[in-house]
Amino acid sequence: MSSANEIDRAGMMQALAQARKSYDEGGIPIGCSLMANGTVLGCGHNQRIQKSSATLHAEISALENAGRLRAQRYREVTLYTTLSPCLMCTGAILLYKIPRVVIGENITFLGGEELLKSHQIEVVVIDDPECKDLMARFIREKPEEWNEDIGEE
Amino acid sequence: MSSANEIDRAGMMQALAQARKSYDEGGIPIGCSLMANGTVLGCGHNQRIQKSSATLHAEISALENAGRLRAQRYREVTLYTTLSPCLMCTGAILLYKIPRVVIGENITFLGGEELLKSHQIEVVVIDDPECKDLMARFIREKPEEWNEDIGEE
Repeated sequence: MSSANEIDRAGMMQALAQARKSYDEGGIPIGCSLMANGTVLGCGHNQRIQKSSATLHAEISALENAGRLRAQRYREVTLYTTLSPCLMCTGAILLYKIPRVVIGENITFLGGEELLKSHQIEVVVIDDPECKDLMARFIREKPEEWNEDIGEE
Repeated sequence: MSSANEIDRAGMMQALAQARKSYDEGGIPIGCSLMANGTVLGCGHNQRIQKSSATLHAEISALENAGRLRAQRYREVTLYTTLSPCLMCTGAILLYKIPRVVIGENITFLGGEELLKSHQIEVVVIDDPECKDLMARFIREKPEEWNEDIGEE
């Protein structure tokens, strides 16, 4: 396994740990991690249920937890997320010009991947079985919360 | 003045009051208000400086302050913002399928208006002098904070 793959595996493991943590809290199991040159800048998970939040998707949580960064720092980031990012999170990636996004899966939900690619952002989809299983279980258990999170009835 | 214009004026006045509040706190003077059928669902302002936040733009703050809403409620919303929404905030509007956006000005910054229009969202730009003056004053005083907020060096 190449060094790049090891870093990506570590990034996705961290995102997945956040997703599991959220599930264990009764929340939506989507996690995210931001890494730059091997350093974790921030990570987070969906907070809709835990904080009654309409905006703290996993990616927004991770960006928020990373705190205020200079523009140049974001240009070094790879964003790891367990699920294809919705349009809000896609827009956040575009705002900060994050150059690379690694996605656990896009079968449960397909977000703004084409929009990312049209802005020359590298998009890698891992198609991870555990990311899919966790979401499938949650959606079976709490379909209304999931629909609310993606703005669907 | 028509009834619709009175409602829009009230909505923008509230967004502008949030922008002034943020300026008075030493923050970035952008404000937002969400109204549905004459009812204010939430309002907020940029919190980069006040809360050291990378994600609480005015629109995200207002959505967050409105709390968890059913998808159908967002379909009744007009979002009033003092400045053209960045791509993150544009994405949030698209996520929740908010059908109408009223913008104080887009001279200081032009965000994702074309993307909104391509999704059949009604976009109205008021070109309000006070919105522009407030931003011009802030950018003169704190150019680095402004660049950080829009992901630019």
